Formats: sequence, C-alpha cells, structure tokens
Amino acid sequence: MQKYELDTPCIVVDQDKLKANIARVQRLADEAGIALRPHAKTHKTPQIARMQLKAGAVGITVAKLGEAEAMADGGIGPILIAYPIVGKTKLERLMRLAARAEVTVAVDSLEAAAGISDAAVNAGIVMPVWIEVDPGYGRAGVQPGEALLRLGRELRTLAGIRVTGVLVFAGQSYDEDSDEGRILVAEREAATALASAEALRGLGFPIESVSAGSTPVSRFASAMKGATEMRPGTYVFGDLTQVKAKAMNVGECALTVLVTVVSRPAPDRAVIDAGTKVFTSDGEDSPIGTGRGYVIGHPGIEVAWFNEEHGVLRLPPEERELKIGDKLEIVPVHCCAVVNMLDVMHMVQGDEVKDVLPIAGRGRVK
Amino acid sequence: MQKYELDTPCIVVDQDKLKANIARVQRLADEAGIALRPHAKTHKTPQIARMQLKAGAVGITVAKLGEAEAMADGGIGPILIAYPIVGKTKLERLMRLAARAEVTVAVDSLEAAAGISDAAVNAGIVMPVWIEVDPGYGRAGVQPGEALLRLGRELRTLAGIRVTGVLVFAGQSYDEDSDEGRILVAEREAATALASAEALRGLGFPIESVSAGSTPVSRFASAMKGATEMRPGTYVFGDLTQVKAKAMNVGECALTVLVTVVSRPAPDRAVIDAGTKVFTSDGEDSPIGTGRGYVIGHPGIEVAWFNEEHGVLRLPPEERELKIGDKLEIVPVHCCAVVNMLDVMHMVQGDEVKDVLPIAGRGRVK
Repeated sequence: MQKYELDTPCIVVDQDKLKANIARVQRLADEAGIALRPHAKTHKTPQIARMQLKAGAVGITVAKLGEAEAMADGGIGPILIAYPIVGKTKLERLMRLAARAEVTVAVDSLEAAAGISDAAVNAGIVMPVWIEVDPGYGRAGVQPGEALLRLGRELRTLAGIRVTGVLVFAGQSYDEDSDEGRILVAEREAATALASAEALRGLGFPIESVSAGSTPVSRFASAMKGATEMRPGTYVFGDLTQVKAKAMNVGECALTVLVTVVSRPAPDRAVIDAGTKVFTSDGEDSPIGTGRGYVIGHPGIEVAWFNEEHGVLRLPPEERELKIGDKLEIVPVHCCAVVNMLDVMHMVQGDEVKDVLPIAGRGRVK
Repeated sequence: MQKYELDTPCIVVDQDKLKANIARVQRLADEAGIALRPHAKTHKTPQIARMQLKAGAVGITVAKLGEAEAMADGGIGPILIAYPIVGKTKLERLMRLAARAEVTVAVDSLEAAAGISDAAVNAGIVMPVWIEVDPGYGRAGVQPGEALLRLGRELRTLAGIRVTGVLVFAGQSYDEDSDEGRILVAEREAATALASAEALRGLGFPIESVSAGSTPVSRFASAMKGATEMRPGTYVFGDLTQVKAKAMNVGECALTVLVTVVSRPAPDRAVIDAGTKVFTSDGEDSPIGTGRGYVIGHPGIEVAWFNEEHGVLRLPPEERELKIGDKLEIVPVHCCAVVNMLDVMHMVQGDEVKDVLPIAGRGRVK
C-alpha cells in the first residue's frame, strides 16, 4: 500500500529517518563515552525500543508503570521507571513487573522509597532504586545538598531497596535560545548529578549510574562531565519543538500526521480532518513561521489553528489549487503528544507502507 | 468501592451532577420550544448518550464517522455527523453505517456531497444531508448568501441525497466576555441559519431542521429565533472553559480527574501523577485564578503547570500539610479533551463508585 492511500488522520513514521535519528544520537553518546537510555514515552512502542537497544542503548526509560508493563510485554528491558511509584495498587503491580523484567525505579522521597521497601521485602526481592535530584528545574526531585543527604541517610535504614544511581532532568534546556545556554544547562545538570552521586557514595551507596540529559542537550553530550548516561526521548522522531531547540532540522523529523482536506470554504482557507484530538495543543508555534505544524512540501501554508477535529490552514496565493480530498503530511509541534492520541502508527519507506505498529503504551498513564 | 480507593490518574464523573446538567439544558431547550441534539464528542460514551435521549434529546451529534460507529454500536440514534465525509474508505464505512443506523451527514461543498451521492446511489439508498453554513466563525461551512445558493443549485442535480437541514456553529461565542455578547452571537447564529434555510427552501429543498447552538449560548436558547434545535456538547460535564464562559459554575462540573500526590520536593510545591497526557494543554487558565485546573475543596492550590506526566501544584501556607499519597480531585480546563485521553470513566454517586464506563469513541478521529 502507498502512503497516500492510508485513511486519515493517521500517524506516519519514515523508517529511514527513524533509523538515522536512532543512529545519530547513539553516535553522540558513543563519542562522549556515555551510555544511552532513551525515553520511550515518545514512541510507546516496543518495536522501536528494540531498534534503540539494537543500536546500542543500554536500556530504556519510561515515565509510568503502565508504560513499563507495555514495554515488558514486548520483551523490552532493562527498564528505568523515572517516576515515583506511590500507592498500594501500583506497588503490587511493580512487584509483579519486577518478577518478569529488569526494573529500576526513581524515588525522591522517603515516603515513596518506604513503600517500595515494604513491597519488596514482602515480595522477597531487592529493588534497584535511583534517587531523582532536581537540577534547578523545579518539578520533582529532591534538592541537592542537605536535603539529598538527609534523604540518603533515611534510605540507608530501608531493607528491600538498593540505591545504585542518581538521575536528574533539566527541562530548562527547552527555555534556552542559544547553544551556549544549552551547553551551560548540560554542564550544570551533569555537575548536579555528579556531586549528588559523590555525596551518596560518601554515605556508602554503590552509585553506578549518573543519569542526565534530554534531546535538546544530546548534541552536547560531551559537555555532561561526570554523567555516565543520557536519557533523551524525542530525538527518535523529532518535531517542531526540537527544531526550535535546534536539536534537529525539519528534514530529520521522522513522524508526520497524514491528513485530508475536507473543506475549502474560502480561497485562502482549507480545513483538514485533524485538530487538537490528533495534534494536541502542546507546545509553541513553529519556529519556521508555519503555525501549529509544518506541511511537508508546502512551506507557504500556515497551520493557523485547531479545534478538536478541525485544522484550519491559511493558504498563500500559490497554494489555492488545493482541493477537497487532497492529502497533506504535517510535522507536528510535539510528537510525544501526538503518539499518545492514536492507537497505531504506520511505518513507511519512501511512499510505501511497510508495517502498522500498535502504540502499546498509549494512554498508559497509571 | 469508594472513589478515593481508585487508582490514579482516572476520570471520575458525578452521576447526580451529570443528570442535573442533562436535565437543565433539556429544560432550556424545552422552554425555548426547540429540540436538543447534544454533541457526543464530549462524552464519547453510548451510555451517556442514552441518558440524554431519555431526557428528551431528539438524537445525538458527532464530529467523526468513527464516533458515529461507536454510538451505533451502542444502539444510539439518530446520529448527525456534523462533519464532511471525504474519501472512498470513509464513504464505504458511511454506507455500512447507514444500513444499520439513522444517519444524517453535514456537507459544505459540492465535492463532499458528490462523493456521498455516488456512494448512496451505489448502495441504493437516499442519504439525508444538512448543509453547513458559516455564521462568521471562519472554520468550515459554506458562506451564506450567494455561495450557499450556488451550492444549493449544484446539489439539486445530485441523486442519492436529500437536503433536509441547515447547521451552523458559531465558535466565536467562546470569545465573548459578556452575556450581551453571547446573546448577540446566539441571535446572529440563528438568523444566519434561518436565512439559509429559507434560501434553500426557495430552491425547493424540504428543510426541516435549522440547527445551531453550543454550550456557551445554551442559556440563551430563546434568543435563537428560527432555530429548530441546538447542539451543545460540553454542558454534560462542564469544565473551567464553560465556567469562564459563564455557562456553568464550578459546582456543576460533573467530571474531575482524580490524582495522587507523588512528590513533595519543596514546602510550597507538590507534584501530582497527571500532566498533559491526561489534562491536555487545551484552553485557557482557570477563570478562578487556580491555573490549569481547580482542586475541589482546596481553592488556594494553584495547578501551576504540566509536563507530560507531571502536574506541579503551588501550595499556599494553609495547604502545606499535603502529603505524598494524598488524593485530589481536579476540575479540568477542557473536559472533552480529557475524555479523549483515557479508556474508561468511573461513575460515582457521592463517594461510591457505581460503574466503570468504557469511552467507546475515544481516539475515533477517522
């Protein structure tokens, strides 16, 4: 089947670009002498995780326990759950997961660690745990310094867990406008992680992994002194947010949404069959001045606005021949969000559809 | 099971509030002497559509063919697909749907109407069609006046379709700050629909339905002179966007997201286990000054920002006892978007979980 025969709206992934992205960031990690543990929240698809592992990744990262289960179901591991697991139901699921997959869990509090400790002792296992430290982003993570030392001392008293790593996430890399700024974020992020690892080693913990990094700073992996690995996610597909962050160019973006023009209510306006229920409202407008997306091969079209199921395109004079029934391919603002909206993605090579992959981790927010 | 025992994040719907919302807007329609054809994109759930029909709705509205199929699977009808159906695959599905359910389809172009005409003639049926007219919103819909008359004349030549209605959608009602503005939108929207219906009658079409209205103007149903029905959707649950539009108050909002505090990294900060992959980035901040949501029973908490799986709460001094593991119920900014993220919703009465409904139309964007 040819790409343009697919019913729309649907997700299309260019296999060659996907492979090139996986290879490129693996190479960046290799050159910096650090490991790559890609974040699977972007693709939520075991088949793509397997491509990352085959290319050299040491394991995968997920945000939620449900994503971890979807990955384990697909035979993927080791799995880092970069998220605190809280509550009886989830702790029971975590123990069942640990019985069939190699799992490490992040914690940033005594409460979360104590829950895991109790569950692990009951299950008769020892759970590897990494401590999340906040490198100034202000989301989750224990504060470095005194608060970290206090947490470390508390964790020493807990059975059933083994603290073997530190992880940080410096989301502020997305706010930087220059490479200088991004390098500074990467350096500081790694420095926080390294100092935290040393503090924990001082408490006697066998810290092996010092984990940092996101897609915008993956180009500067060699600036992450002291980090043993990085965890970028979005690089696998790319999107206009990464183009804005200068992490990728639009030609490298592997994921697009195929849409159909369903209405031509005015000469300068077309309506496509996808809105926020495919593209979402995430992120900022295109850095290339094309609004809420970038229409491949039609750089003059502005993806002006979305309602839930309508996308409104503004057409320049040279695009006014666009007809009802025409199909367009659009690079979205935020690919991780788009993947979470639909149940399958279509893998293509050139214009040929090669495979349809279920997005196994879609909606697995628990 | 009690509500607070549910694993999180999850959607909770208060049955009593849901019923009250359904009854209230049905009463507004009844008092205005017009029919109610609620938009099911908000709940995507046949069981809730059935409640609306039982309360007096004349049918339901959907945006996409896939939603219509989900409703027909649940035994719901008649169904208005307020969206142009374009392309061979969808036209075949539409014909199969029409064989088992009472379906009407909107069109705003000769191209879309011709596709339906061909498919209907092949299938040996006559498809009821309503013409979508743009009441100045600038999304889809043929322009009223000359363009409408031209389309009407073209449609007269097509076999297999029967033009029996006009529909309009004045999304600009969301931009109005005052009731005066909303009433004006409602009046103009209905006036456009009525004038369009009369123009089409003049061409010989048996126009029975003049369809207008959205939740923000449903209070002003009696101002929609000439409309025979209205199609609000969001009223069924309500959200902060409707609170902003003064269509509902926050106490009437029937849908909430139950979340768990998973991190307490600073005295004034808590992290909850839901971000944009549950709440989405849709819509504007809360009109009550509480950010990206409203935490029931904790009016001082600000839902400050979301990442994909993290929600960051800013806590006032009186809320700093909030603990890891505590559960909170949050009214979202845009309920229709939240419903589209998860696979089930939990129906509760008071604190008791009464039922778990599959969201049958979730992700049915095709």
